[in-house]
Amino acid sequence: MLRHHSEELVVETSEKIQFIDITDLLQQAIRRMKFLDGLLCAYNMHTTSGLWVNEHERGLLEDMKKKLQIFASDTEYYEHDDLRIRTENLEPRGMERKNAQSHLRSTFFSTNVSIPVHASKLALGRWQSVLYAELDGPQQRKVHLVMIGTFED
Amino acid sequence: MLRHHSEELVVETSEKIQFIDITDLLQQAIRRMKFLDGLLCAYNMHTTSGLWVNEHERGLLEDMKKKLQIFASDTEYYEHDDLRIRTENLEPRGMERKNAQSHLRSTFFSTNVSIPVHASKLALGRWQSVLYAELDGPQQRKVHLVMIGTFED
Amino acid sequence: MLRHHSEELVVETSEKIQFIDITDLLQQAIRRMKFLDGLLCAYNMHTTSGLWVNEHERGLLEDMKKKLQIFASDTEYYEHDDLRIRTENLEPRGMERKNAQSHLRSTFFSTNVSIPVHASKLALGRWQSVLYAELDGPQQRKVHLVMIGTFED
Repeated sequence: MLRHHSEELVVETSEKIQFIDITDLLQQAIRRMKFLDGLLCAYNMHTTSGLWVNEHERGLLEDMKKKLQIFASDTEYYEHDDLRIRTENLEPRGMERKNAQSHLRSTFFSTNVSIPVHASKLALGRWQSVLYAELDGPQQRKVHLVMIGTFED
Repeated sequence: MLRHHSEELVVETSEKIQFIDITDLLQQAIRRMKFLDGLLCAYNMHTTSGLWVNEHERGLLEDMKKKLQIFASDTEYYEHDDLRIRTENLEPRGMERKNAQSHLRSTFFSTNVSIPVHASKLALGRWQSVLYAELDGPQQRKVHLVMIGTFED
Repeated sequence: MLRHHSEELVVETSEKIQFIDITDLLQQAIRRMKFLDGLLCAYNMHTTSGLWVNEHERGLLEDMKKKLQIFASDTEYYEHDDLRIRTENLEPRGMERKNAQSHLRSTFFSTNVSIPVHASKLALGRWQSVLYAELDGPQQRKVHLVMIGTFED
């Protein structure tokens, strides 16, 4: 019989732009819950970061960072960061992060990924890792996990 | 015991490019169905629009519009819009929309998002809204919702 | 009562960059399994390809290919492809594909899509097809399917 379980995962990031491999964290959550078969949905609770299922190779991650810089650079003008005109969602004076570029860059990644689980293992392809793409760190980030399927006992 | 429910949501758009916050519509559907815990999957039934979970702030949405213009401009040549060479999927003469750019721009957004639901509330992060990204409006759009989890009674 | 079923689909690609319509393959899997209502999750097990739910029209796919070339060209420098500096994930000498651009281009597509199923039919919009976006072919590719919902009998 199908059941579901949900929990929050915390990811601490240490750099402005950083890719953190969370594959093992997801795999550990699956084993801890004795989740057998079904779907693991990982949902990122933030708007200036994302999830990326791709190859964990240093050079590739550097290549991707360059593409993000080209798409939304550090130096151009963003309305979101212009406190002379902005009226919405403002933090107390002086606390507002200039992070329009991080929001925009997040469109290259996913808010959520749903990954098949078979015999308590993530059914990832050979070169696939689940990467947490931090685009406005360092921050404490939360990923909400939902497992839907069959569990042991 | 897990159950599922599905329904269609209608979103009326009024501009060519427009971000409409549908968070409350989703939340209302959850409450109406007495959906308690699990996953809400929102699926966009169109190819020239998308879903975007991000911050609902006017300036940021303007910044995003500019990026879409740069990626696929209003003025460049598109094979999809060239009726001298096109032979597939044609509407009756004169009705065909020139919307290659809208299809291409939709790659920045999602066809579907799966959001955790806890105690009948979308488990969104502090700055997250679910935005319907219209890229070829005005139109009547449909979002298919599927709730999988536990329901009251 | 909800059940789930999972299986692997094989997609053989024949070109370097190619969009293959897999809508019928998905629909056939649904009928074969007598899956009635719920959600079909299609998960791509690769890092240099993706899934794209969009219009299957020749000119549009050509337009998209041009955008991918602009985003990550065939001729620029990529760290991922520089075997003088790379130390991770290396294939035996001489077998390593130069495919950084394919990884980067995959960000325009999805690793997974979850599509509602109603009365044993994919609830796709009028212009929607499920396209397998090969970005580093030809290769044999695998798509993992998970169906969650109600089945006949």
